[in-house]
Amino acid sequence: MTGVERVDPAAPHVLASDLSATRGDGVFESIGVFDGRPQAVEAHLARFARSSAMLDLPAPDLDAWRRLVADAVAAVGDEPQVLLKLIWSRGDEFDDRPTGWLHAFAMPDHTAEHLDGISVVTLDRGLRSDVAETSPWLLQGAKTLSYAVNRAALREAARRGADDVLFTSTDGFVLEGPNSTAVALLDGVLVTTPPALGVLEGTTQGDLFAWAEGRGLATAVRATTVDEVRRASGLWLTSSGRLLAPVVRLDGAPLPVDVDLTRDAVAALRAR
Amino acid sequence: MTGVERVDPAAPHVLASDLSATRGDGVFESIGVFDGRPQAVEAHLARFARSSAMLDLPAPDLDAWRRLVADAVAAVGDEPQVLLKLIWSRGDEFDDRPTGWLHAFAMPDHTAEHLDGISVVTLDRGLRSDVAETSPWLLQGAKTLSYAVNRAALREAARRGADDVLFTSTDGFVLEGPNSTAVALLDGVLVTTPPALGVLEGTTQGDLFAWAEGRGLATAVRATTVDEVRRASGLWLTSSGRLLAPVVRLDGAPLPVDVDLTRDAVAALRAR
Repeated sequence: MTGVERVDPAAPHVLASDLSATRGDGVFESIGVFDGRPQAVEAHLARFARSSAMLDLPAPDLDAWRRLVADAVAAVGDEPQVLLKLIWSRGDEFDDRPTGWLHAFAMPDHTAEHLDGISVVTLDRGLRSDVAETSPWLLQGAKTLSYAVNRAALREAARRGADDVLFTSTDGFVLEGPNSTAVALLDGVLVTTPPALGVLEGTTQGDLFAWAEGRGLATAVRATTVDEVRRASGLWLTSSGRLLAPVVRLDGAPLPVDVDLTRDAVAALRAR
Repeated sequence: MTGVERVDPAAPHVLASDLSATRGDGVFESIGVFDGRPQAVEAHLARFARSSAMLDLPAPDLDAWRRLVADAVAAVGDEPQVLLKLIWSRGDEFDDRPTGWLHAFAMPDHTAEHLDGISVVTLDRGLRSDVAETSPWLLQGAKTLSYAVNRAALREAARRGADDVLFTSTDGFVLEGPNSTAVALLDGVLVTTPPALGVLEGTTQGDLFAWAEGRGLATAVRATTVDEVRRASGLWLTSSGRLLAPVVRLDGAPLPVDVDLTRDAVAALRAR
């Protein structure tokens, strides 16, 4: 990596011909930093490299990114909740080199969502659950900069009076949220969707499962149908910023919330 | 529109937190300029406005964009082949105003593709042909900045030794190219796919059809199956820069080329 410098985020630093801006052609990660501790850095960097490979981007220099994360964490000081956005773009359309940047900014507090939960609607992603295998050019499972559909889905949720979205496959399986991983409590087991179904491997979900297993709670990575999840004993959307948001309504129908489990898990995830 | 200024494209003008660069959240158009004449400007601007509406973006001020196009055309002088890229982004993540820019640059010459044709592979877009109606949040038919899949499809074509892609729906219909509209000659009729199937309304295809009708050639906008197109008397991919590229091979099988029609149509489209 060449030419790393610290710059003022209020000034422009991206070319108008950068393929991030003109084609959403790149990948990203969002790392949460709570009370100065960056979370799941290695899981994020591993996924950053996997996404890059899926887009045939040059491999990001993970040592350089690791140093950049450490520098950013040192720079934000005692800000309690910070998000680090790592971007790796194919670069200027008229050049042959990728461009990358890390942007650190303060996050809003998510305590209300932890306590009150969120209302979620299911939306069809339009794809079968096997496209990651049959049609790799659809980039399902890569965390790309092409998130216009994810953001349109969130606007559709708002139109329906909901806070967030659970994407489903055309063959009836639960996928993920536009910015989150879905975790359901089914027959006493915490369950999430396998990456083979074209979803991202959740970094926060990974730590949640490790914590749950330490408490003796069983976990499983397996495909679940939407019907199954409608009868779950609990459903959460996990992500780096919000950590763990309990779903209190799915398509308008109430879902049970395990208040103690949610509170303890949020505390454990924040204390990583 | 406020704050229009002419700037050096070699200097950065986009914020690292602009949602074009971090989320592919915006729309675009590419207008060809041949020997100083911008092509299909009103069709492009109308589609720019439609795409913006589909993304719930503020409506672009078309009068201001029209002036911007005219200014850019005047500025590029007698450059023979120029592409104008118009970008309308949701803007800075930390602000509530869209950002827009127009970028003019010289295009390569496409004569070889007009004469020699291109080799194309069909690739499944993974979506049914009715998703534009059933699932508008998938943004099919909007020209968004989230083109990572389009670009991945082109890399997949290159891996298969081909030049370009014809996207198909899961229910077997012909859709469009990653950067082009498909036009087939079927039983003496020039046929293209209806926007209702989730494709862009082609600006170059529109002018091609108008020209063809003037020559007494019938045209139709109707759904076609992949099997039908494999038996076409001719197949072209139309776009603003390359204009009209005859497909000489589809998935490795040769297709007939109407050399005279291609030559005359390219000349007519260039002379608009």
